[in-house]
Amino acid sequence: MGPFDVLAIGVVESSLNDAASAPRQGDEGAPDAWLVFEPGFAAGLEGLSPGDTIFVFTWLDRASRDVLRVHPRGDRSRPEEGVFATRSPHRPNPIGLHPVEILAIDGRRLHVRGLEALDGTPILDVKPVLGSEIDSR
Amino acid sequence: MGPFDVLAIGVVESSLNDAASAPRQGDEGAPDAWLVFEPGFAAGLEGLSPGDTIFVFTWLDRASRDVLRVHPRGDRSRPEEGVFATRSPHRPNPIGLHPVEILAIDGRRLHVRGLEALDGTPILDVKPVLGSEIDSR
Repeated sequence: MGPFDVLAIGVVESSLNDAASAPRQGDEGAPDAWLVFEPGFAAGLEGLSPGDTIFVFTWLDRASRDVLRVHPRGDRSRPEEGVFATRSPHRPNPIGLHPVEILAIDGRRLHVRGLEALDGTPILDVKPVLGSEIDSR
Repeated sequence: MGPFDVLAIGVVESSLNDAASAPRQGDEGAPDAWLVFEPGFAAGLEGLSPGDTIFVFTWLDRASRDVLRVHPRGDRSRPEEGVFATRSPHRPNPIGLHPVEILAIDGRRLHVRGLEALDGTPILDVKPVLGSEIDSR
């Protein structure tokens, strides 16, 4: 089956430019960032509010797709594991998952707290975090 | 930017066959299911164990991609909201996100608890749930 086509519905605007220095998860010191949506998808944002916690789905366009085993957290002293047991960006479908809080909304731009995605990263989807998926941060 | 190609790395085997009767979330009575991975991706599963909680990413191949506003939970008595404020399967990139517990592993097949995906749904990715993303179920 497939492949299937995914579309960029927007893009990340961030001060993060360098993959090597990017924090591995948003709770490890990532900067606040803007999610800037394409005009044609703005209607999909209605109902989101500051204070909401959302999952942002990104397309990790600088990742390697032909990797199935990695050293956890890039630490070569640790034995390799399958990529599906890690949050490595390198995986057959490099979809990033980022739980973040909405700080502010300005039209079709969302300001979010602590996003570990590089500037220019395409956005694929946004979903509300459910009560059964508590983000304790 | 894009579109980008996503690949099916496996498929859901489930007793759920009918979208109309499918539960909306896995904690609403969804059946246990099998995730069956393609042989070429089996090495990516090493390191996963029964008892782990994972996010399964699916391609909701029976969803509508041209919908930006929906009645929350399909309830027409409630005002429409943007799809990105809901967990509706209908959205520009119909990527499903399912937090589930691994019950058993048999080679390249994972048995998981309470998956709300239909039989035959393509699988795109698997990631471990982090400690900061506690699933309280």
